[in-house]
Amino acid sequence: MEAFVHAPTPEGVGYVRTQRMHWTTPLTLASGATLGPLTLAYETYGELAPDRSNAILILHALSGDAHAAGYHSPTDRKPGWWDGMIGPGRAFDTNRYFVICSNVIGGCRGSTGPSSPHPVDGKPYGSRFPIITIEDMVRAQQRLIDALGIETLLAVAGGSMGGFQALAWAVEQPQRVRGAILLATSARSSPQTVAWNYIGRRAIMADPRWQGGDYYDGEPPRDGLAVARMLGHITYLCEEKLEQRFGRRGDPGTLDLGPRFAIEHYLEHQAARFNDRFDANSYLVITRAMDSWDLAARYGSLEAAFDQARARFLGLAYSSDWLYPPSETYQMAAAAHAAGRSFTTHLITTDAGHDAFLTDLDMQSVLIRDFLDRLAAE
Amino acid sequence: MEAFVHAPTPEGVGYVRTQRMHWTTPLTLASGATLGPLTLAYETYGELAPDRSNAILILHALSGDAHAAGYHSPTDRKPGWWDGMIGPGRAFDTNRYFVICSNVIGGCRGSTGPSSPHPVDGKPYGSRFPIITIEDMVRAQQRLIDALGIETLLAVAGGSMGGFQALAWAVEQPQRVRGAILLATSARSSPQTVAWNYIGRRAIMADPRWQGGDYYDGEPPRDGLAVARMLGHITYLCEEKLEQRFGRRGDPGTLDLGPRFAIEHYLEHQAARFNDRFDANSYLVITRAMDSWDLAARYGSLEAAFDQARARFLGLAYSSDWLYPPSETYQMAAAAHAAGRSFTTHLITTDAGHDAFLTDLDMQSVLIRDFLDRLAAE
Repeated sequence: MEAFVHAPTPEGVGYVRTQRMHWTTPLTLASGATLGPLTLAYETYGELAPDRSNAILILHALSGDAHAAGYHSPTDRKPGWWDGMIGPGRAFDTNRYFVICSNVIGGCRGSTGPSSPHPVDGKPYGSRFPIITIEDMVRAQQRLIDALGIETLLAVAGGSMGGFQALAWAVEQPQRVRGAILLATSARSSPQTVAWNYIGRRAIMADPRWQGGDYYDGEPPRDGLAVARMLGHITYLCEEKLEQRFGRRGDPGTLDLGPRFAIEHYLEHQAARFNDRFDANSYLVITRAMDSWDLAARYGSLEAAFDQARARFLGLAYSSDWLYPPSETYQMAAAAHAAGRSFTTHLITTDAGHDAFLTDLDMQSVLIRDFLDRLAAE
Repeated sequence: MEAFVHAPTPEGVGYVRTQRMHWTTPLTLASGATLGPLTLAYETYGELAPDRSNAILILHALSGDAHAAGYHSPTDRKPGWWDGMIGPGRAFDTNRYFVICSNVIGGCRGSTGPSSPHPVDGKPYGSRFPIITIEDMVRAQQRLIDALGIETLLAVAGGSMGGFQALAWAVEQPQRVRGAILLATSARSSPQTVAWNYIGRRAIMADPRWQGGDYYDGEPPRDGLAVARMLGHITYLCEEKLEQRFGRRGDPGTLDLGPRFAIEHYLEHQAARFNDRFDANSYLVITRAMDSWDLAARYGSLEAAFDQARARFLGLAYSSDWLYPPSETYQMAAAAHAAGRSFTTHLITTDAGHDAFLTDLDMQSVLIRDFLDRLAAE
């Protein structure tokens, strides 16, 4: 195993742009409804090998997008959301692999979602956008991988909801996935995550500006989305981290009901930033898709689900992640082993909570690099 | 130590009524503002001994009230919120002790709060209600204990925010408190609890029906209070309990954004019930009081705070309580010991989360009965 090395080539993948793939043929959804024409936003990093054997598909979490690495322009304050993981010499080494990051349908970051024009009248879907599932997201992505001329993916990888998609890929497209890297994720949404998602949706839908979902002519439901985001944010961090970062710092002299403590100002800041880049209806549609994620129910048992797969699995769990706790990874591993599948788990000790897969990159980089080395050598 | 016995006399304290004490003299608050005239709702169970040595004051949590035990009328579906703990032969044995439960100022259950008439115009305080602290609640309760003719309390006891008050009593009125029973509580609000409270308030204040707090002529902000309550409810339960009670039961066929899973229907039910009995402004004022709770900041250190106290302490922590985790109890115990105070801790193994002090009564009953026996014998 290699030594821990921080980003050997700090310049990463450099400048990139988000691309879009369009299909006029509608996609038939799990519900029976159809969605089309369809657009999927994606980015790619590195070069596809002549034998097309080196492609890795990266899937993102609830609030992510196709911009996983590099910069769009010199004025960007921040690179893509997993920049430290993707680039020359990084865990997903773009000197060796062709890395694709695909957005999800239902989103608002370039792919077909509730804010996209409805084919009948050209006005935003709004309340007309159908209920989708994780499997629907993955079926849209299969079109993208087809269109890129890739038969078999060396690996699929994702954290949180990205892990849902990676696992769905491995189970639903067994012949196309050689390895699946599942970070801070689960084979189903637990009652607690369903509850958090529901409360966030409840806040959005109670915002009078939501207008039943048809608010695109007016003000968006910023207050509802703010509450949903604040709530989510606290579930992504653990108590110890909040203690370190914020403690009880604040202004004890403030005698009103508004923000006073550092943690409160932080939540407002996060909510405002999220409102600037995310659509409330996408939050509703994507969290509902997350809630319906339950692989055991779909296949009769988790073992039966893993029995479908052919990939090798790497499951990374994070000690302070209480939203998708390590026990969820161990349950997947147990079911995979019962089905005779290869599933390696690692527990990473961290105080970064669920967000660790986005922020604590050292250990996971070593483990992922090693996993990919072995896959590529097979 | 006695055997574990469930409610030896099932009839408990029988029928009771909530009483109210009034004072025309305003109470000066920590902020320097005054609040008056003042009303405090309370209930009592058992008889005060001729030497007035057997009084125990029970303090309630955020959503509680003075009705801790017994029934108000034959049509009541449920008894008071701690009925299993208070009654003949129960932990707070009304054959031996005179048990008082006091409501808090800022509330909406019979004591002066934002929905009470303002002395100047007789209209509800609304936005004019002052910011209060835990210490202000306790100072109002001191008037009640004075008026009942009680010099020294055998014990003060409370869980969660009730524990804040019990601890404030012990530290601020050392000569009047012989024992303090602290359940599922802490000497300060952690950044995470501050954050949950803030998000709940944010939801209420974003509800357009809140009207800056002056909504008593119209509709109350039911949606905002619903979100706040749902959020609180999930923090009171632990993952294991949610799994047992709800799992992923629901109607997978529902293709909309509303409630579909059992956990979602449960949250809506809890929110509706809470809206029927609780005032949103009281939720704001009381959670703000909780946020300001920080005994170490007030006294320079937690050790210095405990140095003020003279009571013996019993601290009960609950293994699955992640809102006020056992570490908070151990921190109080360590500070008390450093100050030379008697502080006994017990960790109760339970899957009931923070709510355990309201629902898992067997073990805590034994421990509290034993603690009171020793106090009374001294």
